[in-house]
Amino acid sequence: MQAYLQLEARQKKIAALDNAMGILHWDQETMMPAGAAPARASVLAELSVMVHDLETADGLEELILQAEAEAASLNPWQQANLREIRHGFVHANAVPAELVEKLVLASSQAAMTWREARAADDWASLEPKLDALFALKREEAAIKSEVMGVTPYEALLDQFDPGRRESQVDRIFDDLAAYLPDILLQIRARQDAGPRPIIPPGPFPVERQRELGLELMKILGFPFDHGRLDIAHHPFSGGASGDVRITTRYEDNDFMASLMAVIHETGHALYEDGLPADWATQPVGKSRGMTLHESQSLLLEMQAARSAEAISFLVPVIRRVLGSEGAAWEADNLLRIYRRVEPGLIRVYADEVTYPLHVILRYRLEKAIIAGELATADLPGAWNELMESLVGIRPRDNRDGVMQDVHWPEGILGYFPTYSLGAVAAAQIFAAAKRAEPDLLPGLARGDFQPLFSWLDANIRSQGCLYMPDDLIARATGAPLGTEAFKANILERYLSS
Amino acid sequence: MQAYLQLEARQKKIAALDNAMGILHWDQETMMPAGAAPARASVLAELSVMVHDLETADGLEELILQAEAEAASLNPWQQANLREIRHGFVHANAVPAELVEKLVLASSQAAMTWREARAADDWASLEPKLDALFALKREEAAIKSEVMGVTPYEALLDQFDPGRRESQVDRIFDDLAAYLPDILLQIRARQDAGPRPIIPPGPFPVERQRELGLELMKILGFPFDHGRLDIAHHPFSGGASGDVRITTRYEDNDFMASLMAVIHETGHALYEDGLPADWATQPVGKSRGMTLHESQSLLLEMQAARSAEAISFLVPVIRRVLGSEGAAWEADNLLRIYRRVEPGLIRVYADEVTYPLHVILRYRLEKAIIAGELATADLPGAWNELMESLVGIRPRDNRDGVMQDVHWPEGILGYFPTYSLGAVAAAQIFAAAKRAEPDLLPGLARGDFQPLFSWLDANIRSQGCLYMPDDLIARATGAPLGTEAFKANILERYLSS
Repeated sequence: MQAYLQLEARQKKIAALDNAMGILHWDQETMMPAGAAPARASVLAELSVMVHDLETADGLEELILQAEAEAASLNPWQQANLREIRHGFVHANAVPAELVEKLVLASSQAAMTWREARAADDWASLEPKLDALFALKREEAAIKSEVMGVTPYEALLDQFDPGRRESQVDRIFDDLAAYLPDILLQIRARQDAGPRPIIPPGPFPVERQRELGLELMKILGFPFDHGRLDIAHHPFSGGASGDVRITTRYEDNDFMASLMAVIHETGHALYEDGLPADWATQPVGKSRGMTLHESQSLLLEMQAARSAEAISFLVPVIRRVLGSEGAAWEADNLLRIYRRVEPGLIRVYADEVTYPLHVILRYRLEKAIIAGELATADLPGAWNELMESLVGIRPRDNRDGVMQDVHWPEGILGYFPTYSLGAVAAAQIFAAAKRAEPDLLPGLARGDFQPLFSWLDANIRSQGCLYMPDDLIARATGAPLGTEAFKANILERYLSS
Repeated sequence: MQAYLQLEARQKKIAALDNAMGILHWDQETMMPAGAAPARASVLAELSVMVHDLETADGLEELILQAEAEAASLNPWQQANLREIRHGFVHANAVPAELVEKLVLASSQAAMTWREARAADDWASLEPKLDALFALKREEAAIKSEVMGVTPYEALLDQFDPGRRESQVDRIFDDLAAYLPDILLQIRARQDAGPRPIIPPGPFPVERQRELGLELMKILGFPFDHGRLDIAHHPFSGGASGDVRITTRYEDNDFMASLMAVIHETGHALYEDGLPADWATQPVGKSRGMTLHESQSLLLEMQAARSAEAISFLVPVIRRVLGSEGAAWEADNLLRIYRRVEPGLIRVYADEVTYPLHVILRYRLEKAIIAGELATADLPGAWNELMESLVGIRPRDNRDGVMQDVHWPEGILGYFPTYSLGAVAAAQIFAAAKRAEPDLLPGLARGDFQPLFSWLDANIRSQGCLYMPDDLIARATGAPLGTEAFKANILERYLSS
């Protein structure tokens, strides 16, 4: 297993660079003085090149082939690690350096243009940049498709959710697209018939909001000994192995926004924290892709923390820390706010019922773009049509329509589906955990997340990349990924009792 | 100049890793949760190995030789850069890998032992570890001495202060050792005859101390757009190119300590900030060694900020921000505290008159150790003798004697002299700046450091490593490094009027 061990040593170097970049990125968003941005960008670029050089070095493929030939002498974790090393090799080496360079340039130009174009609602200036970028993405997808033996769109998706198939995404998303719009109408009718929620009057001082976030993180078992909470413009979870750092932002008049971000990001952080430490420097020790990652944040935010049981425990905590009285602070009212369903134009503000429709829209459009079936010029119109048919609202401009997300201008295609596949997986995993752990819901009602977390530790977090994403889900839940639990939860939460 | 440009490209990679390590180190001391320490240590170790690999790569010496052969086609900055690349190559490659490894191990064991041994005043447990480490340091020094054609001690010193000669250090330190003890007695006699300083009564809230520090940094032109002030257990200046970060710590009852640290570290940071940006990724764009670095912090802390002119401006600022009244806050009293001379056992608490004696003691002992003229077992006795003869006090234990510093247990020999060579250089450079800029002292009196800083920018900061340290000092001040200005300043400050 000489060759395999050499691969491990090489991965250890890559992991060190990745961890360094993780902290540098966290620092950039939380601590770095603004004027250091150009210097930081060039340090990060240089480190990325070093990673890329390690991933594409001469002789690497021979080493992988040798290790694969010796695979019988490896244990299952080593074998899975080798599979992940091969997977990384394919993605790093399939595309010629020249195209990689063009992609970097085109996406940086499109992203830069997007910043001003979105603010000015100026689609015309963005369109040619996007068009050039999409052409290169089609090239990338075609080349990878050839190498990997999957469809071009799958080749892109595979970077974020390894092994995922279009047919499967289509089945899940078509199901939701057929189901949700009608459910949405029913929920809103019911909601309109009930009492209107009273928005708790702010302002809420940042210090109290932060205290509330920290108290919740403590309840959730956030590892403060090797983790942090800070402020950033966009909430995220990052850091390095053994050093999980989350951020939130505080709005004076809306404590809910920060709170939900804290719970969501804590879900991501606990996943990272629960990965197998023995494999921290190896691909097999990493999180199992973006669908699984999102399943862990949404399981905490949408499934566990929004359960009636958890809410009955959390509401008194919120009241105690923010120290307010009155009708707005009654549990029933907070629950109403918490579970408000309100279709809107903007994905990032969407509730859990509407959200998948935003994602399905993007999935269908980006698939058509990669297939060459949708011209960039027709994108705004297609967006508005689909938004109207799925969500029932038509954007009045492109700023809040096709230009609202940074993903496409950054060249990120194949990522969007993982948001809602993650939501679907979250429901399925939570349902399985509830079945397996009778004390799970009673635990939440007393602020004890341990029954849930021991199950997650054993079945998801500790498994790293030992299995492919779908195998991991099937092993943990007893069934392939499907919409049943997601739909059941929505029915129960919004349309029962 | 093909070969030279290849060397530049390689240095750019090293610079990216150095910058990343700079931020990781800063983070470790200011932000990192304690439990992340082992993971961080291994990331830093891995990045250091990558730097070392780049510095010792096959073919590198041939590349340097080729570049040296083409040197005539290089401009003066490129030639200086090549000289610095060669200098780095010699230090990285002179010592065989096996010895490097032994040194890392031995110093990490000695440093670990030191932590507990110092606390327990247990020299016996430290002695064998130090002895083993010193033997390896002698080996290192002997090998480098051979390669570099200098004395073994000079070979160690050269890492921190390139080109420095023992004969020169001896001359400067012998001069100070003959001069200072008697001056010290005179100053103390005079001091005892005057009014006793009244210590301003605390506590001083951290928030006000921090505000005072920030206000001073603003006066000093600290580049907040690409720099920060934070808290760390030991004040330091660090960060990365274009991102200078300093730290201090706050003591409830002593605002002076934090203030002096802020000014000192700002001096280091302004030096880094003023280095030639065009050469940021190259050795020639770095600071000119530790003597020069310390000269820049001490010039600000000891020369400029303790001048009567600066104090007349700063005292009202201190009074305004800390908001206190009474006799303790009179300018004369603050000046008395500020300039208190009080020989003690501990170097890091020493005043500017006593400090060089602490350094001379260490310099003489470590020179004897490297020369093999002083057995490790005899070190505590030699320390106490020398302390008594130079400073006039004899340590009662080894905790506050030979075991007080971490440098030797960490294997750092050849560094100590740069503290006081820096102090001597600070006085000489400040004197030259005063001669050249008639508005310098009047500027300080109105809180305007610009006349001082434009001179420093032009003559020191912007010069990077274009010249060797001594040439830089001689060009800037018109004379080789000597004690004249240092002694004149002490006479004027403590024994005149």
